[in-house]
Amino acid sequence: MPELRKDPVLGRWVIVSTERGKRPSDFPARPKTHDPKLCPFCPGSEHLTPPEVFAVRPDNSKPNSPGWTLRVISNKYPALKIEGELNREGEGMFDKMNGIGAHEVIIETPHHHLDLADLSVHEIEMVIDAYCLRITDLRKDMRFRYVMLFKNQGEAAGASLEHAHSQLIATPIIPKRVLEEMKGSKLYYDYKERCVFCDIIHQELSQGVRVVAQNEEMVAIEPFAARFPFETWILPKCHLTHFDRAKDKEYAAFASILKEILLKFRVALNDPPFNYIIHTGPLVEGHEKEYHWHVELFPKLTRIAGFEWGTGFYINPTPPEAAADFLNEIDIDAVANVENARV
Amino acid sequence: MPELRKDPVLGRWVIVSTERGKRPSDFPARPKTHDPKLCPFCPGSEHLTPPEVFAVRPDNSKPNSPGWTLRVISNKYPALKIEGELNREGEGMFDKMNGIGAHEVIIETPHHHLDLADLSVHEIEMVIDAYCLRITDLRKDMRFRYVMLFKNQGEAAGASLEHAHSQLIATPIIPKRVLEEMKGSKLYYDYKERCVFCDIIHQELSQGVRVVAQNEEMVAIEPFAARFPFETWILPKCHLTHFDRAKDKEYAAFASILKEILLKFRVALNDPPFNYIIHTGPLVEGHEKEYHWHVELFPKLTRIAGFEWGTGFYINPTPPEAAADFLNEIDIDAVANVENARV
Repeated sequence: MPELRKDPVLGRWVIVSTERGKRPSDFPARPKTHDPKLCPFCPGSEHLTPPEVFAVRPDNSKPNSPGWTLRVISNKYPALKIEGELNREGEGMFDKMNGIGAHEVIIETPHHHLDLADLSVHEIEMVIDAYCLRITDLRKDMRFRYVMLFKNQGEAAGASLEHAHSQLIATPIIPKRVLEEMKGSKLYYDYKERCVFCDIIHQELSQGVRVVAQNEEMVAIEPFAARFPFETWILPKCHLTHFDRAKDKEYAAFASILKEILLKFRVALNDPPFNYIIHTGPLVEGHEKEYHWHVELFPKLTRIAGFEWGTGFYINPTPPEAAADFLNEIDIDAVANVENARV
Repeated sequence: MPELRKDPVLGRWVIVSTERGKRPSDFPARPKTHDPKLCPFCPGSEHLTPPEVFAVRPDNSKPNSPGWTLRVISNKYPALKIEGELNREGEGMFDKMNGIGAHEVIIETPHHHLDLADLSVHEIEMVIDAYCLRITDLRKDMRFRYVMLFKNQGEAAGASLEHAHSQLIATPIIPKRVLEEMKGSKLYYDYKERCVFCDIIHQELSQGVRVVAQNEEMVAIEPFAARFPFETWILPKCHLTHFDRAKDKEYAAFASILKEILLKFRVALNDPPFNYIIHTGPLVEGHEKEYHWHVELFPKLTRIAGFEWGTGFYINPTPPEAAADFLNEIDIDAVANVENARV
């Protein structure tokens, strides 16, 4: 059973994998062999993965067989396990609990060589729908307090398989960064009686210098205090705390703007590895006035990792206004050409 | 002038380099050419660096000429600039100030091919003395509130030059992570009337399962809630808030245990890239009862970076007890042999 352990100074919880503990010889991770015939996420390899918890099967094919266009499975090597009790306990001054949780993989397409950015807006919407369906299902498990959805693309961004996929982790604790966001946005709300994210959107749309895309429902910006070059946030224009409670037209708009940003990354930054994380309210009620769901994306371009990890102090070599200029200069036709060349 | 910008939700300050803004074509950083003849940190290349602010010159040679055994210079490409006023101001709802600060480089040895771990304990002590002297000097500048000392070794850990060096950044703000540590340790002190770090040391020494080295003054542990495989903390056994106010015998003990840990990393983990950061109290007074200086080291072994960056939620694949076992199994003779083979 993995363990959740709390840092006694910072109150930060860490998942410690006690079972599949890595030995020194397991580092650095060897480059993976990318033979599509051996890919467990490809159609025909369904027996190589845990049974599916959800799938889109337009041909009504049987579960765990080919025919799907999207498939959700439990992670074969989960960071947290679904069975068991939390059993919160002390070890002297330290706090720990069983590593109970869900760890799922959303396989975004059956096609091994397509990235999320290559999918149609409608197909990306299906991925987003799957995210929502899984949150809705996991909300029923009263042990969980947060569901985190994220995507790592490219080995340098932490992806261990190249076949396009996202991940979901449901946890019995609210991650520290989420708590900090809730606290910061509540502080602002208590003072201003307005949502800090709504105010950010308002100022960014008036100033215009950091906006990189928008449609009727959503806006994408390079945030004022961006930590990383080309860090990009996508926010719904309309105030809403929980990602899984948005309207259909917002999901469609989100799919469209996500594709646009990923294509701009591809052209401007030569198909970079990247991460995105969906920031949404905790499963428990509260924070409805002050918190505003959004997505944070960052291409992995720099290596100054350990220092930032260790200090929380970031040095960003590209001003967000300059990053916005670069992204806004991207020729849509060039994007389409690159896309056509790949598909 | 670089800018310090504050995230309006999290209150986190970021250094944004507005002058040497990196364009998309600057990423990814090209692998550096490591020709020692072109190394600006080698003796004979003193003219390639900004003038030295401190040096150890046993032969009484002139400043900015060869003959030194340790040299401190301003960073040629500083993240923060020493001249100017803070000029804290708003930009609508956002906060920023001029990027005033010091950014220095401590060149640890004149020998291009030696790492810090290859130096003698006495030579490492000279490096630590230089850290202290620079803090003492920067304490006089009333604009600064924190001095952060850190070392990146290896390109994957963010080092842009291979010649052994550490860095120092003095900032007009206290970094968020430091504030959180102060807050967490004060919370513990208010409840227990004891220093949380003193209690950690006491429990670790009694339990013994996570201790990896100790001498009379210092102890090295794998922390209970380690974020990274082989994350290691070095702490003084005697309570003290500020690194630069330790006793000579503590610096000697620190130099000795630092060398021991770095050699163990080298043998156990095949000479990994690593970072260390000296965690010390802010320049302003206060926190003397509850905060305890220490050093956090982490070899760079895993790549799951973006997710952790974005969420503050860590998954550690190696339990700290297992990491301690591996490090404690290291044969000191094997270490000495590797060392002899290199020097």
